Amino acid sequence: MTQETFRIVPRPRHDALVEAAYRHRGYTATESSAAARLCSEASWHGIRTHNAIKALHLDERFGSGGGGCVPGAEIQRLPGRFMAAQAWDANLKLGQAVAVEAMETCIELADTYGVGQVSVDNAFHYLWGGGYVMDAARRGYIAYTNCTSALAEVVPFGGKFPTLGTNPHSWGFPTADALGFPIVIDWATSTIAMGRVEQFKREGKPLPPDSAVDSDGKPTTDPHRVAALLPFGAHKGYGLALLNELYGAAIGGGLPTVRGRGPEARDLGEKSTSAFFFQVIHPDAVSGGAFGKGRTQSENITAVLRDILGHGNESCMVPGQLEANWATRCATSGGLLFSEAEIKEFGILAAECGHEAGEWDPGSFVAES
Amino acid sequence: MTQETFRIVPRPRHDALVEAAYRHRGYTATESSAAARLCSEASWHGIRTHNAIKALHLDERFGSGGGGCVPGAEIQRLPGRFMAAQAWDANLKLGQAVAVEAMETCIELADTYGVGQVSVDNAFHYLWGGGYVMDAARRGYIAYTNCTSALAEVVPFGGKFPTLGTNPHSWGFPTADALGFPIVIDWATSTIAMGRVEQFKREGKPLPPDSAVDSDGKPTTDPHRVAALLPFGAHKGYGLALLNELYGAAIGGGLPTVRGRGPEARDLGEKSTSAFFFQVIHPDAVSGGAFGKGRTQSENITAVLRDILGHGNESCMVPGQLEANWATRCATSGGLLFSEAEIKEFGILAAECGHEAGEWDPGSFVAES
Repeated sequence: MTQETFRIVPRPRHDALVEAAYRHRGYTATESSAAARLCSEASWHGIRTHNAIKALHLDERFGSGGGGCVPGAEIQRLPGRFMAAQAWDANLKLGQAVAVEAMETCIELADTYGVGQVSVDNAFHYLWGGGYVMDAARRGYIAYTNCTSALAEVVPFGGKFPTLGTNPHSWGFPTADALGFPIVIDWATSTIAMGRVEQFKREGKPLPPDSAVDSDGKPTTDPHRVAALLPFGAHKGYGLALLNELYGAAIGGGLPTVRGRGPEARDLGEKSTSAFFFQVIHPDAVSGGAFGKGRTQSENITAVLRDILGHGNESCMVPGQLEANWATRCATSGGLLFSEAEIKEFGILAAECGHEAGEWDPGSFVAES
Repeated sequence: MTQETFRIVPRPRHDALVEAAYRHRGYTATESSAAARLCSEASWHGIRTHNAIKALHLDERFGSGGGGCVPGAEIQRLPGRFMAAQAWDANLKLGQAVAVEAMETCIELADTYGVGQVSVDNAFHYLWGGGYVMDAARRGYIAYTNCTSALAEVVPFGGKFPTLGTNPHSWGFPTADALGFPIVIDWATSTIAMGRVEQFKREGKPLPPDSAVDSDGKPTTDPHRVAALLPFGAHKGYGLALLNELYGAAIGGGLPTVRGRGPEARDLGEKSTSAFFFQVIHPDAVSGGAFGKGRTQSENITAVLRDILGHGNESCMVPGQLEANWATRCATSGGLLFSEAEIKEFGILAAECGHEAGEWDPGSFVAES
C-alpha cells in the first residue's frame, strides 16, 4: 500500500461546514452541533469509516432523506418506576444527538446511583459508539453502549442465512492517568465489515478465513462470492452479536431481517427502527478501596496495565491506542487530516448548503508534512 | 471419540455428599449448601469442567487447603454513597457463597433501581459464572458477571508473555418463554483452556490455529510446545480479556502476573486475590413498551429469536442450548450423569468426610440407558 497523502483541515472550518450541512437539512442547532462534534471527533481519532462525509451520505439515503430520521424530533422520556434506569422513545431523532444526551443522563444517574442506564427505542443510527464511551471515559467514567445495526448481514454460528446485524459493542475505561488516553474497546461482532469485502474486491485480494459465507452458507474467501458475513470468534462472537438483538428486542426493536427495510417492515406491520443501550458506571462505585501497596485506584489501574504491557509485551497496543495516536498526529498538524478526494466531497456538501464550494479546493489546504 | 458411558447419581445423594465434604473442611452450612448447589447445577447442565470433584480439588490445592479461601469468613459490605451499586470485601470467603449472595443483592437492587451492581474484592474463585447468570435469567432478569482468573496464562494480542487471565464473561438473558431455557453466553476469553492443551497432548492432536504460542511468543499448534494461550478473535477477544483486568484493577485486584501466586505476591508486597463484578438489570427497566404488532416484551423476544433462527438457520444453536439439552438428559434419567471414574472420586471424597466410601461403588449406580 502506498502512503496516502493528507491535507490539513482546521477543525473549526470542518465543524462549521458539517453543522451548516445538518442545519440545511432541517436539523436543529443542538442536533447539528452534536452531529458535527461526533464527526469531528471521529476524524480526529482516525475513524475514517464514520467521518462527516459518511454520516451525511447515510442521512441522505436513510435518514432525513429516507424517512428513517426526523429533524427536530423530540425525545420522549418514558415514565418508569426505576431510579437508575430510563427508557426513551427517540421518535427517530438524529442518533448522534440522542446518544450524546443519553450518555449525559447516564453520567448524572451514575453520579447518584453508582450506575446509570438509558435504553432507547425508535432510534436512528448513532454512527460511532466508540465516540460516546471515549468521551465518558475521558471524563473519568466506565461506559458501555451497544446497538442493533440497521441491516442483517451476519449469519448465526452454524447457520446459512444472515439474520443478525454487525451489532457493535463499545466499552470505554478511564485510563488517561495510566496511558494518557482512555481505553476504548469498540468493534462490530462480524469478523469484517461489508465495506471491507468491497475493498477486497477492488484490490483483488482474498478475504481473511472465516469472515464470510457464500449463498449456500459455505465459508468463502472469494470476495465476489460473499453472500453474508460471519461473526468473529465462532460461537463466542455469535453470542455477542445475539446480545445486541436480545437487548434490542427487550427495548422494542423488531425483526432483524426486516429492521433496516422500511417498506418491507411496513408491509409486514413490523417496526423498522434500531435500539440503543447505554450504561455508565462511576469508578468509585466499584472500588473496594484497598489497593496493593497503598496505591490509589488510578495508580492501581496504572500498575496493572504496566504489568500487562511489561515482560516483553512492550510493543503491544491497547484498544484505543491507534485512535489516540491519530489524535496526536492531528494535534501536531493542527487540524483534521483528509484525502484530496474527501476534501472534494466537502466541496459538494458546501455547495449543497449554499456555501462557496471553491473554499474547499483541496489545493488550498496545507499538506501534512 | 467413543461414546462415554454415564451412571445416574440421584441429585440429593450428590448434593448431600458435596455439602458434607465442604462442612468437613470447615465451611459453614450456608457456604457448603451454596457450593453443593452450584456444583450440582454445573453437573445438571453438563459443565464437567466445574463439577464437585474439580471444585473440591481446587479448594484443597488453593482454597481452604492452600490459604486462598477462609471457611466461615464474613463478607464486609463496604460503606458507600451509591444506591444501586455496592462494593464488598469478601475476606477470602468461598467464591460460590459470595457469588450467590452478590447476585441476590443485585436482583434486589435491580428491583428498585432498574439495575443493580456488586463489585467484590479479595475473592476466591466462583467456579462457574454461567451458573449465577443462568439462575438470575431463569428468574426473569438480565444478568452479567466477570472475574479475573487466578493465573496469567494468556498473551496480549501482539505480545509474547502471558500477563492476562483466561478471564471469563457470562451473560444471562431471560428467554425461557421463547426457548424453554435462558440464553447463557459464558466463555473464557482465551481460544481454548490450558486443560484442553493437556487433552490435545494426551490425544496426540494438533491445537486449533491461533490458540497458543511457544516460549518465543510464536503461534504454535503443537501442544507440547505451548508456553501460553492466545485470546480468541485476535484484538477483539484481547479487548474483552483486558476488560476483566480493568474491572479487577478498579475494584482492588493486584498485578495479574503475581495474582495467583501467593508467596510471590507476598514477597513483592502485592495482593494475590481475584475480583468479581456482578450486575443485574430488570427487564422492565429497558422496555420502551411499544413492541411490533402489539406484542408483549416476552413475545417480542420470541419473535426476534424466531427470525434469527429461521430462514434456513433452524439447526443453529443458541448459547445455553447445550446446557439445556444436558439438563433434559439428566431429567429424563432422573439424576446427574457421571462416569465411573468420577463416581470413584466421589468415593474418595466420601471417605475423607467419614462417609461409607462403599456407598459410592460405581456398579451400584444405574447406567444411563
